[in-house]
Amino acid sequence: MISLAGGLPSPDLFPVKELKKASDEVFDNDGKTALQYGMAAGYDKLREQVAQMTRDRGVDCTADNVAITTGSEQSLDLVGKLLINPGDTVLVEEPTYLCTLDILRTYGANLVGIQMDEHGMRMDLLKKALKEHPETKLIYTIPNFQNPTGHTIPNARREEMEKLAIANGVVILEDDPYNRVRYSGKAQFPVKHFDNTGNVIYLSSFSKFLVPGLRLGWMVADPSFMKKLIPMKQSTDLHSDNLSQYIASRYLAENDVTKHVKQICDLYHKRAETMMKELDENLPEGSTHSNPEGGMFLWVKAPETVNTVDLFKECIKHHVAFVPGAPFYSNKVKQGTFRLNFSNADSATIKKGIDRLCDAMKEYMKKNEVKAE
Amino acid sequence: MISLAGGLPSPDLFPVKELKKASDEVFDNDGKTALQYGMAAGYDKLREQVAQMTRDRGVDCTADNVAITTGSEQSLDLVGKLLINPGDTVLVEEPTYLCTLDILRTYGANLVGIQMDEHGMRMDLLKKALKEHPETKLIYTIPNFQNPTGHTIPNARREEMEKLAIANGVVILEDDPYNRVRYSGKAQFPVKHFDNTGNVIYLSSFSKFLVPGLRLGWMVADPSFMKKLIPMKQSTDLHSDNLSQYIASRYLAENDVTKHVKQICDLYHKRAETMMKELDENLPEGSTHSNPEGGMFLWVKAPETVNTVDLFKECIKHHVAFVPGAPFYSNKVKQGTFRLNFSNADSATIKKGIDRLCDAMKEYMKKNEVKAE
Repeated sequence: MISLAGGLPSPDLFPVKELKKASDEVFDNDGKTALQYGMAAGYDKLREQVAQMTRDRGVDCTADNVAITTGSEQSLDLVGKLLINPGDTVLVEEPTYLCTLDILRTYGANLVGIQMDEHGMRMDLLKKALKEHPETKLIYTIPNFQNPTGHTIPNARREEMEKLAIANGVVILEDDPYNRVRYSGKAQFPVKHFDNTGNVIYLSSFSKFLVPGLRLGWMVADPSFMKKLIPMKQSTDLHSDNLSQYIASRYLAENDVTKHVKQICDLYHKRAETMMKELDENLPEGSTHSNPEGGMFLWVKAPETVNTVDLFKECIKHHVAFVPGAPFYSNKVKQGTFRLNFSNADSATIKKGIDRLCDAMKEYMKKNEVKAE
Repeated sequence: MISLAGGLPSPDLFPVKELKKASDEVFDNDGKTALQYGMAAGYDKLREQVAQMTRDRGVDCTADNVAITTGSEQSLDLVGKLLINPGDTVLVEEPTYLCTLDILRTYGANLVGIQMDEHGMRMDLLKKALKEHPETKLIYTIPNFQNPTGHTIPNARREEMEKLAIANGVVILEDDPYNRVRYSGKAQFPVKHFDNTGNVIYLSSFSKFLVPGLRLGWMVADPSFMKKLIPMKQSTDLHSDNLSQYIASRYLAENDVTKHVKQICDLYHKRAETMMKELDENLPEGSTHSNPEGGMFLWVKAPETVNTVDLFKECIKHHVAFVPGAPFYSNKVKQGTFRLNFSNADSATIKKGIDRLCDAMKEYMKKNEVKAE
């Protein structure tokens, strides 16, 4: 079975040796402190380092704006817990990260999907939705290599999103775990770069450019938000794993992270190109795929008469797996869509997997008399 | 300043060398797996080890009953999130762990305090409260060396608690982080030992007998509860730190944990005895303290006319700190109470700290004309 389903980064490039060195140094130099209870907001030095990384991307901030979390999933959950009351409207890209949808639903959010084009969330539709939903509390966006579509929002559109949010008194939740994994095109500013009023909550994580097993993410936000966030974080898990925070901090201090990230980008670039070439050559007529400039995913649109749950079953018979599109939709599911992951299989496996997928698609379409639209 | 306030285990006995060895072996043997995403319920091998530790204490369970959490604080939060709806009544020991009160309040619980004697929660009062509050959903108990009082519930009373819970269709949340840190008296069974119907949710943690910096706790519960818990855990932080789970697992497999725990117990015993002796000799007339058989805390009752917040200010002038009793109460605060910690200062410091405390108490009482009751 070849899985193109999950969202795992490639373990081939986990810096095991370097992390072991960092870990040994933590035990030798800071053992008792790293193994003791820590601060709810996170290890001070790591907060400083995260603030520096965030300033390097054009966001004005200090360690006081940073909280370390138990991964982005916790950041999302804490924002939901703090900001969303039952019935609050949240505007989300349609489709979007399914776990965020789950979290927002847990807190009773009324989810409204905003369609995207190849440059991400459409600002004309965002404007319209804000007008139709004056009760909107939050806009949720994944601006870089969006999960699941792979789309990236250009700077101009990001600036416009922030202006629309300000004009409507709405908070933006910017979820940006993939930003460093860019293998083509030009880096865009975070939406938070355009934030002069403190209405953007920025999230990122170590999972995609370092390792996900150190369960560490972070939030960058206005002090007024931090004041509510930190006690909430404390009553959720006291603080994030202290040893891992010390290890991550040492790793950042002692290694050429840019060089490490470049290796990841080169590898994912090769894998993404292999996947896209194979799709271009073999996808049945009427099916298309997105062209991400980074990240881990691309998105396939087959004709809408394709039921991807049934297609999935056909694929399992062909020993290949993907994630059907339906759970990524907040409201009306667009049929015929599914997500492919290119980070966690080597190029030969990807090639074989896509061949199997396309065979399965053709078989399914023939059997079900699907016509290209 | 001598702090007898916090709740930190002594870092003097953190097994730094042994944990470094375990960590090195994890990097060498399981590096890529330990640093990758893991399972929401926790690392399989660690779940097995926890199940074994729990069976050793007389609880019938397997790894399927175990979930690893990001510390007991998260266990408490997840139980609150899953079980408590606004207005639900929760019966708690009065006083009890203040963070649990915070969490339960966050979820809108109606808290009802049950008075304790030196053997913990009084069963006659529990019975009465269950009758008065037929809407009760949960009984929350810390059966061993309770925080903040240090009281321990004997087996017979535990069995009775479980019978009362069953008879009233109520869940028991058994929070047991301190059980291994017993330095005198005889180990009692967990309340969950008496559970034949699956109504007891048992919590414990690595924080008090290993280290708290590996932010790891666990829950042992019925499969029907696990089925709801695991997806909730997943949408809260995906899973707990994977590297730390692997390190804890290796540590448990390769070290004589019983011997390590004995060292902790011996140290805390010495510190507790120093504290109690010094209190016996110096506490002003009309003040008493509890006599814990383990754990990290003891509880002082001064005359009820003593305002412990004002006393605290007096103590700060004498360069010693404690935690005033008020925040540990769910409802009506019993004045004149406060908590002392004996795990995180050496005996000489404890002696000096208690001398300062007693001096401050005497000064406060004289100034405020407090009479012994």
